[in-house]
Amino acid sequence: MTRTWRIGVAGLGTVGAGLLSFLAEKDGFAPQGGKAVVTGVSARSRSRPRPFDISGLPWFDDPVALAASPDIDIFVELVGGSDGPAKAAVEAALKAGKPVITANKALIAVHGAALAGLAEAQGVPLLFEAAVMGGTPAVKVVRESLVGEEIHSVAGILNGTCNYILSAMESSGRSFEEVLAEAQRLGYAESDPTMDVGGFDAAHKISILAALAFGCAPSFAAAEIEGIDQVALLDIQMAKDLGYRIKLIASAERSDAGVLVRVHPTLVALNHPLAQTGGVLNAMFIEGSRIGRIFIQGPGAGAGPTAAAVAADIADVMTGAQRPVFQRPALELKPFTPVDPARSTSRAYLRFLVKDEPGVIAAVSETLAEAGVSIESFLQKPVDGSDGVPIVLTTHAVAESVLTAAIDRIADLSSVLDRPRLMRIARS
Amino acid sequence: MTRTWRIGVAGLGTVGAGLLSFLAEKDGFAPQGGKAVVTGVSARSRSRPRPFDISGLPWFDDPVALAASPDIDIFVELVGGSDGPAKAAVEAALKAGKPVITANKALIAVHGAALAGLAEAQGVPLLFEAAVMGGTPAVKVVRESLVGEEIHSVAGILNGTCNYILSAMESSGRSFEEVLAEAQRLGYAESDPTMDVGGFDAAHKISILAALAFGCAPSFAAAEIEGIDQVALLDIQMAKDLGYRIKLIASAERSDAGVLVRVHPTLVALNHPLAQTGGVLNAMFIEGSRIGRIFIQGPGAGAGPTAAAVAADIADVMTGAQRPVFQRPALELKPFTPVDPARSTSRAYLRFLVKDEPGVIAAVSETLAEAGVSIESFLQKPVDGSDGVPIVLTTHAVAESVLTAAIDRIADLSSVLDRPRLMRIARS
Repeated sequence: MTRTWRIGVAGLGTVGAGLLSFLAEKDGFAPQGGKAVVTGVSARSRSRPRPFDISGLPWFDDPVALAASPDIDIFVELVGGSDGPAKAAVEAALKAGKPVITANKALIAVHGAALAGLAEAQGVPLLFEAAVMGGTPAVKVVRESLVGEEIHSVAGILNGTCNYILSAMESSGRSFEEVLAEAQRLGYAESDPTMDVGGFDAAHKISILAALAFGCAPSFAAAEIEGIDQVALLDIQMAKDLGYRIKLIASAERSDAGVLVRVHPTLVALNHPLAQTGGVLNAMFIEGSRIGRIFIQGPGAGAGPTAAAVAADIADVMTGAQRPVFQRPALELKPFTPVDPARSTSRAYLRFLVKDEPGVIAAVSETLAEAGVSIESFLQKPVDGSDGVPIVLTTHAVAESVLTAAIDRIADLSSVLDRPRLMRIARS
Repeated sequence: MTRTWRIGVAGLGTVGAGLLSFLAEKDGFAPQGGKAVVTGVSARSRSRPRPFDISGLPWFDDPVALAASPDIDIFVELVGGSDGPAKAAVEAALKAGKPVITANKALIAVHGAALAGLAEAQGVPLLFEAAVMGGTPAVKVVRESLVGEEIHSVAGILNGTCNYILSAMESSGRSFEEVLAEAQRLGYAESDPTMDVGGFDAAHKISILAALAFGCAPSFAAAEIEGIDQVALLDIQMAKDLGYRIKLIASAERSDAGVLVRVHPTLVALNHPLAQTGGVLNAMFIEGSRIGRIFIQGPGAGAGPTAAAVAADIADVMTGAQRPVFQRPALELKPFTPVDPARSTSRAYLRFLVKDEPGVIAAVSETLAEAGVSIESFLQKPVDGSDGVPIVLTTHAVAESVLTAAIDRIADLSSVLDRPRLMRIARS
């Protein structure tokens, strides 16, 4: 006896159209004794050309009306955005006692705790596998496979657009602006790329992983975020000469003091698996007290993989599994105690321009030594037609507050022409 | 309101003791609103020294009696072995309507379909996350995260003992026998190492993954298996000179003709993620039509990680999820149609001894050309004090039947002193 599950899909962009064609190809996706049939769709425009013909599907102008419709059993939200219609529709579906599946990282990162509370009060699942790493298992792994584990940290490459841009800058020797323009032409980047290149998308995703891993409420507002728009081609080239590749790393670490969630361009040793995660791939490390380190790599976006992740969530709803949204019940989620990044310690990369005159390196070295910063390597390369000479150095592990103070002093030196550019170096 | 789940644990070796201390540390592991309490244990010897004190736990001499006891709600089988008490106890638990969790790859690889049928008839879960890759998510990923995906192949390093031995042979320049003896002293290898070094353990695991990925009955008997006991240090060194590392690769591929499950030493390009999976780590690639390639790496064994995997299965039982054991109901599992390996195609590595005399290379080259095998690279290295000169060559992609025929011809050449050693080269 096969139970039919009536699916309502709001948002028919790339992922939405991918999901509809996935479900159609499967002739009613029917895993595990249940059959999924789309019984309602909603989007901003009904007539917009789509790769999938929606003319035979019941249409709803208002996603909130679809969410609460008696004609659907599961609501799939692919509208996007942390607020507005996406939030209203998800709330309406949950209040109507319907399981919700979403690919919306912003919504979960910002309102996840409240929505989890609503879902748990109604006894229905709220699932979002597609929100993190697209079709690559991430949410289920942290929430279910590692449910018994004490996770210390999660860190990885969670935004394919940034990873594509950084990879293309390195391989083609072009600037951020040139590669971004090309990515926009190819459809790898949005016309307004801020969400991706500004690091916000990765910050949404790592906020969700932090909540799942540490049992705290997702807290996007507490994330420290730096994007890739200030990464110069020169940095990529100098880093490579030193044995590193620059990646946008999103990380969440738990310590006795609390949780530190951050996104920033980071130097990763060339032989590190994250350095070898190129193009639009995503990857992450999960570290815990029992499991040691687990590494997962795969496609982070795209209609096919993301639709497969949504379909897996649909199959999960069919199993009838009852579990908290974030590894522990919403009412028991720990408060998110942010850690001051100034107290964190790491090796660092500094790059700045100096006047081409004697004594400059001595002055810089002395200044750093006085500030308590120990230099690990030093690289100076002649550059034609430049006003100054770029210098790059890496430091041994140093507290961020000490490093920032040292940078202030270096910037004040008369032989230094700009404020040093700082990037952190990942642990190996 | 917390439901208490009474757990019976049969088998108190490394993993069993690890599970008991895990559950004790957690003061009754209580994820997701349910609390796990051990209410019965069984093992071969009650008095054997263990890292965990079992004197306070109800003891059962017979694991079958424990499995069927009214005092337990979930039966955890950590006895091992495809038949005997492990099978009898698992059957007894399922027949008594109790969820079963096992780390026993041999049992599932050999009797998985029948046990799945029994579990599904009773409506209880049969879970075995710990059977493959220890604490690293594998079973759940293939069964649940990729439930909607058309998986083409799964391939990886699934036996930590073999991987440790091969890594140690390369790093220390010692022979298989020396490194195995050391691994046995250190407890990384069993006193009878056949299950590991013969490739059987990896074959059990890949048989399970094949069933989950392709929806066919697990069929250990159909696996083509070669272990690492014939891998010479010379092969490891010659392969490295050619840019490869030798790994024991377990793979399952689906084609229109059927399924090919095999385990054999394989040359993997040095920059390939599997080549960089060293020591006791496990890793696998999953390839599918929508997801592309997903890579997962982590610890494949050890008390801590494996106990964490069993605990995750316990949490899963608490959710009440109802799903088929192998991605589709046991009665609908496709028959396993093995593919003749002779029809498979790959690049290959050949190593053999030749007489140190003129014309040998010409004779070998001509023989291969006549057989239709195209040479990609050729390596001859002088070796002191040897009866002959070792020659290594790699071929372009060639059907296994063609290659085997060519090897027969080479072995017949008067200038060739032994039968060529054949290993396959992994696709990049």
